[in-house]
Amino acid sequence: MLTKGKHPMSTRAKKLFNQRSDLVEEMLEGYAAAYADIIRLTEGGLIVRRTPKDAGKVGLVIGNGSGHEPAMIGWVGYGLFDVNVPGPVFTAPPPAKLLEGIQAADRGAGVLVCVSHHAGDLMTAEFALAEAHDQGMADVEMVVLYDDVASAPRGREPDRRGTAGLFFVWKMLGAFAETGAPLAACKELAEKVRDNTRTISMALTSCRQPVTGEVMFHIGEDEMEIGMGVHGEAGTGRVPLLSADATIDQMLPLILEDLPFQAGDDVCVLLNNSGSMTLMELSILYRRVQQILDDRHIRVYRAWLGSYATTQEMAGFGLSLCRVDDQLKALYDAPANGAAFKSLGARP
Amino acid sequence: MLTKGKHPMSTRAKKLFNQRSDLVEEMLEGYAAAYADIIRLTEGGLIVRRTPKDAGKVGLVIGNGSGHEPAMIGWVGYGLFDVNVPGPVFTAPPPAKLLEGIQAADRGAGVLVCVSHHAGDLMTAEFALAEAHDQGMADVEMVVLYDDVASAPRGREPDRRGTAGLFFVWKMLGAFAETGAPLAACKELAEKVRDNTRTISMALTSCRQPVTGEVMFHIGEDEMEIGMGVHGEAGTGRVPLLSADATIDQMLPLILEDLPFQAGDDVCVLLNNSGSMTLMELSILYRRVQQILDDRHIRVYRAWLGSYATTQEMAGFGLSLCRVDDQLKALYDAPANGAAFKSLGARP
Repeated sequence: MLTKGKHPMSTRAKKLFNQRSDLVEEMLEGYAAAYADIIRLTEGGLIVRRTPKDAGKVGLVIGNGSGHEPAMIGWVGYGLFDVNVPGPVFTAPPPAKLLEGIQAADRGAGVLVCVSHHAGDLMTAEFALAEAHDQGMADVEMVVLYDDVASAPRGREPDRRGTAGLFFVWKMLGAFAETGAPLAACKELAEKVRDNTRTISMALTSCRQPVTGEVMFHIGEDEMEIGMGVHGEAGTGRVPLLSADATIDQMLPLILEDLPFQAGDDVCVLLNNSGSMTLMELSILYRRVQQILDDRHIRVYRAWLGSYATTQEMAGFGLSLCRVDDQLKALYDAPANGAAFKSLGARP
Repeated sequence: MLTKGKHPMSTRAKKLFNQRSDLVEEMLEGYAAAYADIIRLTEGGLIVRRTPKDAGKVGLVIGNGSGHEPAMIGWVGYGLFDVNVPGPVFTAPPPAKLLEGIQAADRGAGVLVCVSHHAGDLMTAEFALAEAHDQGMADVEMVVLYDDVASAPRGREPDRRGTAGLFFVWKMLGAFAETGAPLAACKELAEKVRDNTRTISMALTSCRQPVTGEVMFHIGEDEMEIGMGVHGEAGTGRVPLLSADATIDQMLPLILEDLPFQAGDDVCVLLNNSGSMTLMELSILYRRVQQILDDRHIRVYRAWLGSYATTQEMAGFGLSLCRVDDQLKALYDAPANGAAFKSLGARP
């Protein structure tokens, strides 16, 4: 019922919560109860697979700030992550909790810690890994992932942020680990997908920080921002509000020319809903993406439209492309069974 | 970029569209292109299965007003609908278009037209059926479905509206038709699921009608409405904004006592996001549902949290329960492969 903030317009003030201090705890309890056939909430606050594989599979772990659901609580399950380590809202979990996650994911074939590149998440992972190694867990590695072209120029890719394009990594890496691939190969595969993935995002509105109720940033009613990060990190600047087609016309070339994607390439596309976009808008946006890719003779292998990583009720979206070869296509299509993401494999 | 309407607060004015007159057409084109492996858009504007079954399967068809995506464009595919007939925004399709849908779904084993009970949809279906019969298609039947306890009292169930609880019908009926069940049995199964399903909805905010940009109704910043229909139809009245737990405490008894659901029952639960609710809120709400059901010794077989039928960016949700026996559990868990809904069957 908070109405704080100077710019309430277009951001919802009313929320259905209980105590704001208990948001994450109550969310995890509810979500794990709803999907009790797939996941389990541990006493330490980890989301783990209900039926983990026995020995022989590399454990996949990711930590992240909460508030981006279904990332990543909904991506634990067969063909996806073994363990998710949720932190406080928009804040990386503490290293000790990530270490617990590493231990929980260890089935004797090594553990790969996936890091969506943000300062806090990286620091948490570095500390947790050092501690794991100190404790004698030799086969624990991390892979740092990034995809957002707006956050650093070409040539400085490792300085870029991790955003929704990394769902291509999660999906394909999850399928690859399920085949029994060893730790070093899993890490290489994650890097391969990352190096073929690019994302650009935009926002129409802010959201409210759920704990404080504060509006996170302001955008005028006649403006939009291209290149916005998932927590409102500054993008390439405010522009006047454009039509759907003109928005894609501005955004898509930024990623096409970055990799670059070329005629003859096969790509997967993701239009990720930041929160309160409608599927009507996403579909209209996708229509223009397909037109441009057709014109450039870039073939769409598959596309996803939906809420993968949100920033609460923010209105905006991320546009991601991943260049795929036969190996990646097969991994993309392999079965997966998370609470928020399912793939049937050979589709009936 | 419309800013019409007297009450812009909490409803997003900025939308990523092109011409508002082309919304539905562009949406269908984009959505069908994105999910070209599963669905196809016909010249007549129908969404049909890319790889329909050959003879021997009852054709399942549904028409509906657009604007509620992923309903129903995302529910066409294996184990779900054969054909969706989308109408203009919030308006039933014309009978001639539904008739086309019936013809497209006919594989020689009869066609069942599913009607989510609203006046326009019912009238469209009655006209289309009469025309189909006139044209000599004997094996075409319709089933009228409803679940919303707020729209008519007990004893007048057939006067109730169809809302999100009908997704239980779509899922189970889709699986049942896939087994080769005959038309009469399909209709009976749909009625069985309907008669075991109850829904109650609530809204925190309106949305804007996407074509006109107008706010559809107003709710004060310190109020909510319980029993709201999917187009803003009046509910049981405005109440002061409650906490998540207190909201469920008000809503759940309205459906529990209506069927009534009793100790020892097994149920499936749906918390349907009307548009811009966060998964954080839905999870916290679900936590309370589970607590109350546990207290009453009603067992949750499975639960879904997510956007099944939306009303654009409306903030609100529907709470649905479906009582399931062994037959319905098996149908619920059977594989399905729509663009917006997937089930793996035997879950790895």
